[in-house]
Amino acid sequence: MTIKEIARLAEVSTSTVSRVLNDSGYVKHEVRERVEKIIDDTGYLPSDTAKDLKKKNTKLIGIIIPKLSSRTIGLVADGITKVLDENGYSSILANTGLDFKKEIEFIKIFKQKRVDGIIFVATNIAEEHIKLLKKMKIPTVFIGQDSSSYDFSCVVHDDYGATVEMTNYLLNKGHRKIGFIGVDEIDRAVGYQRRRGYEAALKEHGIDVDRNLISIGNFEISSVDASMRKLMKENPTAIFAVTDNLAVGAINYLLKNGYRVPEDISVVGEGDSGIAEIYNPGLTTIKYQYLESGEESARVLMRILKTDKSEKKIMNYRLVERESARKI
Amino acid sequence: MTIKEIARLAEVSTSTVSRVLNDSGYVKHEVRERVEKIIDDTGYLPSDTAKDLKKKNTKLIGIIIPKLSSRTIGLVADGITKVLDENGYSSILANTGLDFKKEIEFIKIFKQKRVDGIIFVATNIAEEHIKLLKKMKIPTVFIGQDSSSYDFSCVVHDDYGATVEMTNYLLNKGHRKIGFIGVDEIDRAVGYQRRRGYEAALKEHGIDVDRNLISIGNFEISSVDASMRKLMKENPTAIFAVTDNLAVGAINYLLKNGYRVPEDISVVGEGDSGIAEIYNPGLTTIKYQYLESGEESARVLMRILKTDKSEKKIMNYRLVERESARKI
Repeated sequence: MTIKEIARLAEVSTSTVSRVLNDSGYVKHEVRERVEKIIDDTGYLPSDTAKDLKKKNTKLIGIIIPKLSSRTIGLVADGITKVLDENGYSSILANTGLDFKKEIEFIKIFKQKRVDGIIFVATNIAEEHIKLLKKMKIPTVFIGQDSSSYDFSCVVHDDYGATVEMTNYLLNKGHRKIGFIGVDEIDRAVGYQRRRGYEAALKEHGIDVDRNLISIGNFEISSVDASMRKLMKENPTAIFAVTDNLAVGAINYLLKNGYRVPEDISVVGEGDSGIAEIYNPGLTTIKYQYLESGEESARVLMRILKTDKSEKKIMNYRLVERESARKI
Repeated sequence: MTIKEIARLAEVSTSTVSRVLNDSGYVKHEVRERVEKIIDDTGYLPSDTAKDLKKKNTKLIGIIIPKLSSRTIGLVADGITKVLDENGYSSILANTGLDFKKEIEFIKIFKQKRVDGIIFVATNIAEEHIKLLKKMKIPTVFIGQDSSSYDFSCVVHDDYGATVEMTNYLLNKGHRKIGFIGVDEIDRAVGYQRRRGYEAALKEHGIDVDRNLISIGNFEISSVDASMRKLMKENPTAIFAVTDNLAVGAINYLLKNGYRVPEDISVVGEGDSGIAEIYNPGLTTIKYQYLESGEESARVLMRILKTDKSEKKIMNYRLVERESARKI
C-alpha cells in the first residue's frame, strides 16, 4: 500500500493524503474522515525510512548487552527501554551472547542503521571499542564500567565503596579470617574494584591480606566448589563472595558438607539479585540499583544528545542485612 | 562524513569510492588502499537508510516482550537474538513493561520502521492485535501462546502435557490431596492449560477436583502466603505451584511455619528457572526449553519470510526430579 493508492481509493490527491497523515494544512472534515477510514481499513502506515533521510535523527538508540538471561542485566535493560520509550525513542538490541568480538561488529551495524546514540552495558572496556566509537562520533553511554578517563559518559555502581562497607560489616561482627571469592580483574568493576575494596578495609583494620584466603574463579556457580575447597583449609569464619550467585554456591557447598549457615560460618554476597531474598537462609548482600542505572543511562544519553557534554553518574547502594551472617 | 567528502579527501571520483565500498568493478590497488585508509581514518560507514529504500527488506525484526528482568524471558530473548544474528538480522526491541496497551503502539512503530517480521513473546492474545497484524501483513511468530487458530505461526510449550505428567508424578508417589497454586486463566498457557492438566490427571485417577485445594493468585511471590493459608486448611500432602517462583514462595511459607520439605509436605513447581537448581531443598520441577523456543521462533520466522506458510511448533519438556517431593 502506498500513499498513491490511498489517494486513488479516496479519490483525492496525494497531497491531501499527506496533509491528513501529517495533520497539517486544511482538509475538509468529510474528506479527512474518508481518507482516515481508508488508511484504517488498509492498515497503511507511512514509512519512517523515507522521512528518516530528510530528518536529522532516526529516534533509534543502539543497546549493546552481553546477555539477557541474567536478572541483573534484565533489570538494566528494563530501565533503559522504559526511559527511551518515555522519550519517544526505539532501541536496536545487540546481544553479544558474551562473545565480546561481536561488540565491534554491532557498533558498525548501529552506524549503518544510523542510530542517534548508543548505550553500552559493558563488562570491560577495550581500547579498540573506544577508538571506533570516537571515530564514529555517535554519543555513547557506558553502564557498569568507568569510561570517564576516555571522555565517555558513564553510569557506574560504587563497587569499591560497597565492598569496603560490607567488609567493615563483617569485621565489626568480629570476623578476622574472611575468605574472598572473586572474579578475574579484567572485569574492572566486579573483579578489580570489589577486590580492592575488600583489601582496603582489611588494611584499615590493621589486618594483613592473606593470599590463601582469596580465590579467583568465574561467574559460574559451578566454579564455587573448587574455591570453597581451597578456602576452607584456612578455617575462615566468614565467606565474602562478589556476587549473590557465588554466595549461594558457597552456602550450598557448606550445607552439603555439614556446616550450618550462619551458626558455623557466615556468608555474604553482592547484588541483591532476587535470589538473595528468597533463598533460605536469606542472604546478606549489597543492593545495587540496576533498574535505576538503566533509567539513568538513558536520561544521560537524552541530555548528551542535546549538549554533547559527557557525564559520570555514580549510583547509590545499600547493605541489606538478612540471616546469612552473624556476630562471633 | 559523506561519500563526496571521502572522494574529495582521496582525490578520486565518488563512483570510485562506491566501487571500493561495494567491492565491485575495477579499482587500482594503490587507489583502493588510499580510499580504504581514509574510510578507516574517518570512521565512515555507508548509511543503510538510503539503501533500504531501494532494497526489499530492512533486515530488521521487531521483538515484543513483556519485560526483561525475568530469567525465562531473558532466555527466550537470548535464543531469538542469537539466531537472528546468525542470519544477518538485527532486532528492534519493544519492552512493554507488562503494560499490554503498549503492544498495539509498538506494532505500529514496527511498521514505521519497516521491520521484515515480528516475534511476539505473548502472555495472552487479544483480538485487537490479531486484527492489526493481519492488516499490516507483517510475518509474525508468537512464542508461548497458541495463535494457530488465527493462522499465525507459533512456538508453544506443552503446558498441558507437562502438567499432566507432574500431577501423575505426585499421584504415583501416593499423594491424593494436592494443593494447586495457579494464575489467572487470561494467561492461556500458564493459567488455563496448566490448571486443565492438573484437573485432567486427577480425573484420570478417579479423584474429584476439590475447589478448596485450588488457589488462583498472580505471578508475584508475595501472593503466595495468602494462597498457602487457604490451602493448608485442607491438610494437603503436596503443593503444586505453576511456576518455580511460586513454589519457592510456598516452601518459604512452610519452613517459616515449622513444616519440613519434603518430610512433612512435598512441593513441586514448573519452569526450571535457575532458582530450582540452587534452592535449598532443590526443587522438583518441569524444565521447559526457553532458550530453544526463542531460537526456534527465529528459525520459523526465517522460513515464513520465504514461504509465507504458517507453522506451529510444540517444544519438548522434561520432568527434573530433585529433593522437594517424596513418596508417602
